[in-house]
Amino acid sequence: MSSINYSCSQLERLCCDAFVGFGFSVEEARKITDVLLLADLYGIKSHGTQRLVRYHKSIENGSVRVDAKPEIVFETPVSAVIDGHSGMGQLISIFAMNIAIEKAKQSGMAFVTVRNSNHYGIAGYYTKMACDQGLIGISTTNSESIMVHTNSRQAILGSNPLAFAMPAEPYPFWFDAATTVVPKGRLEVYNKESKPLADLWAVDEHGKSCTDADHVLECIDGHIDSGGILPVGGLSEGMGSHKGYGYSMISELLCSITSGGATSNHHQRVKGQGAGTCHSFIVINPSIFGDAEAIKEHLSVFLQELRDAKRADEQVPIYTHGEKEILSLEKRRKEGIDVNISTVAEMINMCNYLGLDSTEYLGDVDISNAKQGTYDKIYK
Amino acid sequence: MSSINYSCSQLERLCCDAFVGFGFSVEEARKITDVLLLADLYGIKSHGTQRLVRYHKSIENGSVRVDAKPEIVFETPVSAVIDGHSGMGQLISIFAMNIAIEKAKQSGMAFVTVRNSNHYGIAGYYTKMACDQGLIGISTTNSESIMVHTNSRQAILGSNPLAFAMPAEPYPFWFDAATTVVPKGRLEVYNKESKPLADLWAVDEHGKSCTDADHVLECIDGHIDSGGILPVGGLSEGMGSHKGYGYSMISELLCSITSGGATSNHHQRVKGQGAGTCHSFIVINPSIFGDAEAIKEHLSVFLQELRDAKRADEQVPIYTHGEKEILSLEKRRKEGIDVNISTVAEMINMCNYLGLDSTEYLGDVDISNAKQGTYDKIYK
Repeated sequence: MSSINYSCSQLERLCCDAFVGFGFSVEEARKITDVLLLADLYGIKSHGTQRLVRYHKSIENGSVRVDAKPEIVFETPVSAVIDGHSGMGQLISIFAMNIAIEKAKQSGMAFVTVRNSNHYGIAGYYTKMACDQGLIGISTTNSESIMVHTNSRQAILGSNPLAFAMPAEPYPFWFDAATTVVPKGRLEVYNKESKPLADLWAVDEHGKSCTDADHVLECIDGHIDSGGILPVGGLSEGMGSHKGYGYSMISELLCSITSGGATSNHHQRVKGQGAGTCHSFIVINPSIFGDAEAIKEHLSVFLQELRDAKRADEQVPIYTHGEKEILSLEKRRKEGIDVNISTVAEMINMCNYLGLDSTEYLGDVDISNAKQGTYDKIYK
Repeated sequence: MSSINYSCSQLERLCCDAFVGFGFSVEEARKITDVLLLADLYGIKSHGTQRLVRYHKSIENGSVRVDAKPEIVFETPVSAVIDGHSGMGQLISIFAMNIAIEKAKQSGMAFVTVRNSNHYGIAGYYTKMACDQGLIGISTTNSESIMVHTNSRQAILGSNPLAFAMPAEPYPFWFDAATTVVPKGRLEVYNKESKPLADLWAVDEHGKSCTDADHVLECIDGHIDSGGILPVGGLSEGMGSHKGYGYSMISELLCSITSGGATSNHHQRVKGQGAGTCHSFIVINPSIFGDAEAIKEHLSVFLQELRDAKRADEQVPIYTHGEKEILSLEKRRKEGIDVNISTVAEMINMCNYLGLDSTEYLGDVDISNAKQGTYDKIYK
C-alpha cells in the first residue's frame, strides 16, 4: 500500500473548495469539512476524506440535494422530529444537534430525531458538540443494510453506530463505534489496500465467514442477494452475537422508528433519490442530577482508575474511550494525515469533475497504483 | 446435572413466604418475587430463583437492610436522584421506575438515577414496566467488578447490563443483556452444573483465557487479585473488545456517575454494609415524536421483516429480542420451572434459617448431589 502525507490545512482547503464547488455556501462547506477532518485527525480513516468519493457520487447523481433545508415537522419542549429533505447529512445533523442542545439547556434533556437525511460522517462529531458545552451527548444513525443478524444470512440492519460523550478531565469519555464488528468503511479501506479481512468479520451469501473485502462489498451493495458484516459478538449467541444485534436494534429504533423514517432495509440506492438515512440526537444536562462539576470530577477519577488498572501486558497501555483520538489529533495536527493513493486518485477525479486544479491541493502525484471504481457500483 | 421441576405457583409461594420471613411486608415480598419469577419464566435462570441464596446471604449479614426506604435527594420535572439507603434492589427499583414513568407521562421523557442500592434482578423487569404502559423503557445497573476491560487483567467494571424495551405487536422489542460476554450468574450456573466455560468467556489472573468457572468466580470474588469475565467482543480490539468495554462504560456512567454513587470497583463486599449498587431508569414517551400508535406499527413491521430474513440455516428460526422470552413464559407457565439440585439445597438452607418447613414448598427431595457453599465466600 502506498500513501501520501498531507497537512491538515491542505486537506481542509481541498474539502472546502470542493463543497463550494458542489454548490454549498462557504459556511456550509466549512461545516461539512469540519466533520470529515475531525475523523481524519482522530485517526478514524474509514470516515474521513477517504469518504469524499461517496459524497461526490451522491451529490453528482442527485441523491444528496445541495439546496435542501432541514424542516422541523413535530416539536415539544423536549423533542423535535426533523425531515432532512435529502440534504447533506452533516448539515442536517449539526442543525439537529444544536436544537437538542438548546432544548436540553432549557428542559434538562432532549431527543431530536431525523428522517430523510444522508450519511452524516462520524456519529461522535455530534456528541462532541454537546460534550464541548458540558452536556452528555448521544447519537445514533442507521445506514444501508450491512449487518447479518443472528441466524440470518441476509443483511437487514445497518452499521448503526452508537456514540456517547460525557465531559471529563483531562479528556472526555468519547465512545463512537459501529455495532457491527467493523464498519463498512473498514472494508473499503481493506479493499483499497488489497488486504484480507479477519475471520468472523463478515459472511458471504451462504452465511459462511468470508475474508474477501471486495466480495463482501458486492454482497452489501446488493449485487449478491445476501451476505454482510457480523454484529459485535460474531456469528454465535454463545459469544454474544445477539448482543451486537441488540445494540444495533437500539441504534436503529432510536433513529428510524422514532422519526417515522426508513429503516436500514428500506434505504434507497437509486440515483436521484435521497438515501433516507435517519439519525438521533439525545442530550442530557448533567445538572438535572445536581452538581454538574462534581459529576465531571467523579467521572474523571473513574476514568483514571480504569487507565491505572493492572495491565495484561505491561508494554500495552490501557485506554479509556476517546483518549487515543486525542493523542491522534495532537500527532496528526503536527505530522499531517496519510492519504491512501486510491483515495488521492478519487480526489483528483473529484477535482476534475469540479474543474479544480488538483495539483494546487495535492501536488503532482503518481496514482498509477490506485484502485478505483468501488463507488461507481453502488447506485442502481 | 440433576434438577427438579416445580410449578410457578410453588416457587411463588416459597419466595413470598421467605421474603415475609426476612421481614418484608406481604406487598413488598410479592414485588420482589415477581421480579425473580419473571426471570425464571423468561428462561433467564441465572437471575431467577437460583439467586435466592444471594439475597438470603445479603439480608442475613446486613448488607441488604430490610426496613430501608428509598429517598428522593434531588429532583427536576425530568429527573430524580434516589438514595436507596441499602434497601432491597427490587423495591428501590420499582419505586424509581414508577417515578420515571410518571415524569415521562408529564414531561415527555425522564431519567431517574439511583445510588446505594443492591442487586436488582433482571434489568428488563423495569423496562417492561414502562413498555407495558406504551412507553420506551431503558435501564442499566452496575455491580461488583467482574469485567476485565481491554488490555487489562484486572476487573474494574461490572456486568453492567443495558436493557431496552419498546412497544410492538405481537410482542415488544425487549432487550436485556450484560455487556460482558456472559453474566456472572451464568458462571454460577456452570459451576453448580460442574460444566467448563467456553473459551474466551473469561480470563485468569494472568489475563489468559480460563474455562474453570470456580477459578474465575474466585477471581471475581476477590480471593485472587485479578482475572474476570471478558466484554462482548472478547479479548482483542480486532474483534471489538473495546466496543463491549464501551457499552459497559455507558451502562456504568448512566447509573453510578449520574447518581454520584459507587462505581463498580467501589462496590462493598463487607458484611453489614450495603453493596452500593447503582441503577438508571430512563423513560421516553413515544408521543413526543407524534403518533405513538403509528410508531408502534412501524416497529412491528420492522421486527417482522427481521424475523422473515433469509435464514443461515433453514432449520434455525431468526428471533427478535424478547420473542424467546415470551415463548419461554408460555411454556414454563404450563410445564413448570426446572430448578437445579444445588439451588434446591440452597432453598432448603434458607427455609431452615427462616424456620419454614421446606417440604411444604419443595417436597421431600434428595440433595446429596448438591454443590453448596459458593456464596459463603463472597463477604469479607
